[in-house]
Amino acid sequence: MSVKFSAYDPYDFANRRHIGPSPSEIAAMLDTVGAASLDALIDDTVPGAIRQKAPLAWGKPMSEREVLDHLRQTARQNKVMVSLLGQGYHGTIMPPVIQRTILENPAWYTAYTPYQPEISQGRLEALINYQTMVADLTGLDIANASLLDEATAAAEAMAMAHRVSKSKSTTFFVDRACHRQTIDVIRTRAEPLGWSLVVGDPFADLDPASVFGAVLQYPGTNGHVHDFTDVIAGLHAAQAIAIVAADPLALTLLKSPGEMGADIAVGTTQRFGVPVGYGGPHAAYMAVRDAWKRSMPGRLVGVTVDARGNRAYRLALQTREQHIRREKATSNICTAQVLLAVIASMYAVFHGPEGLRAIAGRVHMKASRLASGLKTLGFAVEPEAFFDTITVAVGERQNAIIGAALGEGINLRRVGDDRIGITVDELTRQANLEAVWRAFGGTLHYDSTDGAEPAIPEALARTTPFLEHPIFHMNRAETEMTRYIRRLSDKDLALDRAMIPLGSCTMKLNATAEMLAISWPEYADIHPFAPADQALGYKLMIDDLSDKLCQVTGYDSISMQPNSGAQGEYAGLLTIRAWHLARGDTQRTVCLIPTSAHGTNPASAQMAGMTVVPVGTRPNGDVDLDDFRAKAETHSARLAACMITYPSTHGVFEETATEVCRITHEHGGQVYLDGANLNALVGIARPGDIGADVSHLNLHKTFCIPHGGGGPGMGPIGVKAHLAPFLPGHFATDGRPGAVSAAPYGSASILPISWAYCLMMGGEGLTQATKIAILNANYIAVRLKDAYDVLYTSASGRVAHECILDTRPLAESAGVSVDDIAKRLIDCGFHAPTMSWPVAGTLMIEPTESESKGEIDRFCSAMLAIRAEAQAIEDGHMDPLNNPLRNAPHTVEDLVGAWDRPYDRETGCFPPGSFRTTKYFAPVNRVDNVYGDRNLVCSCPPMSDYAEAAE
Amino acid sequence: MSVKFSAYDPYDFANRRHIGPSPSEIAAMLDTVGAASLDALIDDTVPGAIRQKAPLAWGKPMSEREVLDHLRQTARQNKVMVSLLGQGYHGTIMPPVIQRTILENPAWYTAYTPYQPEISQGRLEALINYQTMVADLTGLDIANASLLDEATAAAEAMAMAHRVSKSKSTTFFVDRACHRQTIDVIRTRAEPLGWSLVVGDPFADLDPASVFGAVLQYPGTNGHVHDFTDVIAGLHAAQAIAIVAADPLALTLLKSPGEMGADIAVGTTQRFGVPVGYGGPHAAYMAVRDAWKRSMPGRLVGVTVDARGNRAYRLALQTREQHIRREKATSNICTAQVLLAVIASMYAVFHGPEGLRAIAGRVHMKASRLASGLKTLGFAVEPEAFFDTITVAVGERQNAIIGAALGEGINLRRVGDDRIGITVDELTRQANLEAVWRAFGGTLHYDSTDGAEPAIPEALARTTPFLEHPIFHMNRAETEMTRYIRRLSDKDLALDRAMIPLGSCTMKLNATAEMLAISWPEYADIHPFAPADQALGYKLMIDDLSDKLCQVTGYDSISMQPNSGAQGEYAGLLTIRAWHLARGDTQRTVCLIPTSAHGTNPASAQMAGMTVVPVGTRPNGDVDLDDFRAKAETHSARLAACMITYPSTHGVFEETATEVCRITHEHGGQVYLDGANLNALVGIARPGDIGADVSHLNLHKTFCIPHGGGGPGMGPIGVKAHLAPFLPGHFATDGRPGAVSAAPYGSASILPISWAYCLMMGGEGLTQATKIAILNANYIAVRLKDAYDVLYTSASGRVAHECILDTRPLAESAGVSVDDIAKRLIDCGFHAPTMSWPVAGTLMIEPTESESKGEIDRFCSAMLAIRAEAQAIEDGHMDPLNNPLRNAPHTVEDLVGAWDRPYDRETGCFPPGSFRTTKYFAPVNRVDNVYGDRNLVCSCPPMSDYAEAAE
Repeated sequence: MSVKFSAYDPYDFANRRHIGPSPSEIAAMLDTVGAASLDALIDDTVPGAIRQKAPLAWGKPMSEREVLDHLRQTARQNKVMVSLLGQGYHGTIMPPVIQRTILENPAWYTAYTPYQPEISQGRLEALINYQTMVADLTGLDIANASLLDEATAAAEAMAMAHRVSKSKSTTFFVDRACHRQTIDVIRTRAEPLGWSLVVGDPFADLDPASVFGAVLQYPGTNGHVHDFTDVIAGLHAAQAIAIVAADPLALTLLKSPGEMGADIAVGTTQRFGVPVGYGGPHAAYMAVRDAWKRSMPGRLVGVTVDARGNRAYRLALQTREQHIRREKATSNICTAQVLLAVIASMYAVFHGPEGLRAIAGRVHMKASRLASGLKTLGFAVEPEAFFDTITVAVGERQNAIIGAALGEGINLRRVGDDRIGITVDELTRQANLEAVWRAFGGTLHYDSTDGAEPAIPEALARTTPFLEHPIFHMNRAETEMTRYIRRLSDKDLALDRAMIPLGSCTMKLNATAEMLAISWPEYADIHPFAPADQALGYKLMIDDLSDKLCQVTGYDSISMQPNSGAQGEYAGLLTIRAWHLARGDTQRTVCLIPTSAHGTNPASAQMAGMTVVPVGTRPNGDVDLDDFRAKAETHSARLAACMITYPSTHGVFEETATEVCRITHEHGGQVYLDGANLNALVGIARPGDIGADVSHLNLHKTFCIPHGGGGPGMGPIGVKAHLAPFLPGHFATDGRPGAVSAAPYGSASILPISWAYCLMMGGEGLTQATKIAILNANYIAVRLKDAYDVLYTSASGRVAHECILDTRPLAESAGVSVDDIAKRLIDCGFHAPTMSWPVAGTLMIEPTESESKGEIDRFCSAMLAIRAEAQAIEDGHMDPLNNPLRNAPHTVEDLVGAWDRPYDRETGCFPPGSFRTTKYFAPVNRVDNVYGDRNLVCSCPPMSDYAEAAE
Repeated sequence: MSVKFSAYDPYDFANRRHIGPSPSEIAAMLDTVGAASLDALIDDTVPGAIRQKAPLAWGKPMSEREVLDHLRQTARQNKVMVSLLGQGYHGTIMPPVIQRTILENPAWYTAYTPYQPEISQGRLEALINYQTMVADLTGLDIANASLLDEATAAAEAMAMAHRVSKSKSTTFFVDRACHRQTIDVIRTRAEPLGWSLVVGDPFADLDPASVFGAVLQYPGTNGHVHDFTDVIAGLHAAQAIAIVAADPLALTLLKSPGEMGADIAVGTTQRFGVPVGYGGPHAAYMAVRDAWKRSMPGRLVGVTVDARGNRAYRLALQTREQHIRREKATSNICTAQVLLAVIASMYAVFHGPEGLRAIAGRVHMKASRLASGLKTLGFAVEPEAFFDTITVAVGERQNAIIGAALGEGINLRRVGDDRIGITVDELTRQANLEAVWRAFGGTLHYDSTDGAEPAIPEALARTTPFLEHPIFHMNRAETEMTRYIRRLSDKDLALDRAMIPLGSCTMKLNATAEMLAISWPEYADIHPFAPADQALGYKLMIDDLSDKLCQVTGYDSISMQPNSGAQGEYAGLLTIRAWHLARGDTQRTVCLIPTSAHGTNPASAQMAGMTVVPVGTRPNGDVDLDDFRAKAETHSARLAACMITYPSTHGVFEETATEVCRITHEHGGQVYLDGANLNALVGIARPGDIGADVSHLNLHKTFCIPHGGGGPGMGPIGVKAHLAPFLPGHFATDGRPGAVSAAPYGSASILPISWAYCLMMGGEGLTQATKIAILNANYIAVRLKDAYDVLYTSASGRVAHECILDTRPLAESAGVSVDDIAKRLIDCGFHAPTMSWPVAGTLMIEPTESESKGEIDRFCSAMLAIRAEAQAIEDGHMDPLNNPLRNAPHTVEDLVGAWDRPYDRETGCFPPGSFRTTKYFAPVNRVDNVYGDRNLVCSCPPMSDYAEAAE
């Protein structure tokens, strides 16, 4: 008996599934880059001084099956109740067809932010549906493509009000009926900017002349609906800005904020089909009057034309954004919540205005019946006019009733110490209402409330139409919905079809085993304000993931609250600020930032009340240490912090990092290390060891949360122990900064993705991933270095996990722009690398560890062919004005129509890299950005343009 | 307070989601067909005499949310245990990436059988991977694209052996080590054909000279592995055929059947990633020596070329199949298990040979350790040589040990009354083995069995390579797997992109809410031979679904066992046969079948031991009543049954059905009503009321189980009360026919789909669906009748749920074949209707109720444009030999290359109906079937052809 069994482990997730190159590919690639081994390459690339001492180790990694079992066991510790807690989080039904074809479809969730419009027409159309929906419901002119959550949207609205108001005041009024977390986040935002808040009753406490703006909640957190028309008129008379935070489902029945005269409306579209998810992610919205569209933060999708004059979509007015405005930016908003906005928009398409009104009507009548029943039982119910929320005076019985409801499986809301709030939603069943009545001590049958009357005053009833555009009236059979969604996704190029080598964006594998759990009710259906003992699974996960992230980063404490990288920066700087303040160093407000930093860095610093002092960069991309030292000395007394990125935004492991930290500390400052490039560090070096005090971690980069077409993101921050007491709080009373997000743990429901990733990789797998990410980038640099100059290498000639190719020479020699190359890559079946950042006229390429040698070779062959085409222009073999680079991307329209080009169709459409039988054709030719910004249209174009999609 | 709320029900699944046309579309369509109302159309179409008296009614339909809750509650009544029961059903891990991108992806599961190869290249490639895998593992020359289950595959192999053996014997030998259900199904199959079985030990009881073939199990059901080389040599010496039923995972470690000389190998690929699912569906396999490939039943995928000479795949050797051979057919195999075969093939791609061997090695070593531990505990363990299964002598402790194991959450297998069988699998954990040892009364640690030796004798160890083809060595990172699977599915056209108007195939919506539950462990992970109290959820579902199907059909009893429509026919005829036999009518063996019947009808009749007597069809498509009456009288004494289809295969509600039933009964026969067209009857007429005695129901047509690209299907049968005692049994001892499928409830795990459909539609919704299916078909008939002759209408000029267009005149007038039209429809973005069936030179169109007016209009515009193109040929405006019809489908290759056609590219590629920016291009030009059959290659072509896909 002698059968041999190999040591091959078929369940080794890290090496078989997550990491792209196989062992034989790794060997071949090391040979190409001229390294004797992977470790030799790393030794050659990463400065020894910063290498971490001990390997990452937390035991044997789990297999996919084991992690799914583990996630299931953890899920069971969460308790799914009927939560009638409201406050901006509501039960809702995600239509199964949307769940399957969007939320669970890699074609949607692995897509990137639609910066390359030609390969993003599908999600851009979905987003323009979203913007149309928001503008219609709010009665305003123009809406953006989503913000992070209602509370931060309200804070953004406040900041915008300050920008556009002609009032000289620095005081802002907040309706006391705003959701508690909204007030908290606004307070956090106002404080470092030196703005005062007045929180009160807008009908009693608001003095328009003394404020630059006001935010009013509609319906109020305790249920009332008021007509704010007069309040708003008063604000306008004083040149103050009126913001209404409104529930979009309520707006299907209620007079819109626009009709009341509001300037800005914000809110959350969570209840349009997106589960509460213990707080997120969901898409918040913002809509404004036309006059202020250029001041609105966030992404905005607009209509334009392509090179053939056909309709196309793209991001509009990008010059508003932080990466352009840098030190002038007043918002650091970068990520949107695209995947969730797409879902919400499809929910509206799925139901149409009639369906939305019907859902709202049912919700309202259930609330009315609930109130009627409670009155029958002898309770005083407020308010008289409401949509879905009532407040009941219960005196000393508060605890008893809430406890009885818990016994029925229902969460009710504690209001003060003698009232109870109840919010009904799309999920509320008749039996739930009967259970509530029982908890209040009565036995009522649902039918007994047949006579309940609507509680919406006639004056507040909506009379204006909405969602009249044909897309919201398409045939809504599931067959048609499925095909519409498929057609949209087929227009887009995501990770399920090709590498997306975006430098600084880390578009790595989002493994299915990581994604499965987010659809499970035990994660999806927990209210963020549910009692703690209903979220023990979440606690276990957050604690364990935090512990692992601390090990990865060398920090001592983690806050999961920030739900984007930029928000992490802001939260981290607030933490530093609070630490200084606690030490009495109120004068420490200067923040040193290298000029090469990502645009969010200076924007975040300004939001945190700091003054940005730029620091120069050396020709090799490193921080100019001399300049840094000089600036630190100049501002020594006022130095609050510095912000650096490591490896640098130039894709290099600088030798200067520890020195920068030392200097900063010497002058009393704190070091913020931007975690955007953590994918080059995990297991190899730790920000905490290098000397940094705080960093954010882009879980949507390094830790596998998918980009979702432009969100959700997650940006938790890690800090050293001395900063831990100053991490942002949430309804905090212990002196730490206030909340930065609506929910205590940000977008908690996507944390299982990162957790599963860590568990399946193990410390060793994570470290191997980092090494392969570095190998992949160096392999590209070597393969392309004869064709393009590789900017910024280390002393040893290595790049980190990304590399920058200089394409400026081609502009001079052949008139080939970086844009031409990016569009030509579409013909080759690729998303372009990061364009013109951090250096104009360059391409920054980051392959990540998940791409195989085969795919990287395909990319290199495309890039080399592009260089050869430029050469042909240089050599006079190709027309400098009419060539495949200038005309890219080539579309089916080009193929079908007359062909009057000096090269043939084959050359145009099948450059090296492109697939033959499964060729991706962009649905539009090159998009004209200028035309769109000159002729701004940001809602659904007329029906005729939809003819095909709706066919 | 006066807000109005509409009565619109957003949760009305039937009318908003399942049924395609909206109310306004329905009105417009009624107008076109000239009917005052839907009911008026039905009155006009369906003969009053057969209309059912009472409406279908089982209460309020459920919403999607309610049905998912209901399915979850039902699921909780199933108990997921660790089943070490073996017998052909094994725990396995479906890789998450396969689950998400294939099993849960409508692009895969809504596809049809790949009869139209140009739009099926993706699944054809996956199937050729499957065939290659099976041929390699079994060591045989050629494998088919899957069969229904191992037991029926073995019965098919027996029938094939009878066909190809030169022996005159009518006796077949069955290894007593075959799985019990295999023996049962073989016995059922042999009996009506008059073949004797000998069940025994092949080394002791087999007399090769007295049999035409033998089936040997490898490994045996109780675990032993024997080398059958000498047994097979003996069979061959006597001109008998050797069949080996083999476990493909075991074959990665064991000498292959081919190396032992086997002629045929069969088995199940379930443990290649497909959950046990309470019995199915899974893909069985069959592989044969090259010499007998033309006698092999089932679908076979082969390699050929397209019109440009490029490699293409298509179904090969179709003339072997039952729909061609009709009365000569010896197998009624029609459906395959494509979706499951695709999953199994991807499991092999995912793991590669090294991974499969590693999994098999782990399984084997766990079994060895288990045996070693039990020996340590003092038990006698058999056999000495085994793969994954052992049998333990336990004497009187059998019940106690099985009970103790149950207490540990483990199912063990009862063997006789004093032994216990244990089979380990990919899922078995160390802790499970320790629990088994505890159940046997010992406390052992897994590590204590470190010294266990492999139990595979050297002579039986596999020495030959397998899966050497590059596709099984592709980079298997999830990123690459995802893209490979996506590229394959992008080549295919399924319901998620366009209507598939296949007459008789009922390609309706497979709603997501119906599909979700099949992935849940509580349905997927129940062993078919688990104790009944672990499957109470299944029982509840099967009972309720059966009850509803009885109400739908007017029958009294349902058997869920048949797992395809054809198998339902066979099972129904066996039931009739058993009834006759029980009455002593052994001479009743004549079956009357109209010449228009589906080819499976005569094939099934012959399998049930009946003699087929064809009955004529009248020019209008009706059964020729005079001929029927005459044949019935001629064969009166021997009349067993008649088989009719209603509405007829010509798509008409005949007036003759009740008369046919009356005549049949008058002559002592039983009526088999083929349920293929039940989608035209539900809620309107019931087979049982019309006078039929038995029918099968294609759950994969009328009841929403997706076609999966060519399977799974489900074909339960309904019977009148008098036949109920004669329904097929499963391990039955009460005189009813034996099993027809391996599992008692066929492919039970997909029943939640049909159940959810019934629950969400309610009786009213189902009836409405039928009416709309009829409206949609009549609408098409009216819209196209001026362009094409509509064959076969009722006296009132109506069609049923499908209509037949006569395209023969175009062949004469313009040289346009039905094939030309079908391929041109691909250019328009459609799958062709059913071609040349039931009448050569025609197209049979069935839109189903799920298609909207918009999609149907798109189809009509395509068909009208095609007619106009034919007209242009007739009028001399188009070249009769070089025109868009002849050259269809047009591909990107056509567009890119030189264009020397007398029409332009636009005309060729964008005919009416086609989408503009999301145009579907077939990946190959027209496929050459003849070339492929002349140059038969049915396994993976060389690497060069995969270059693109593997890139």
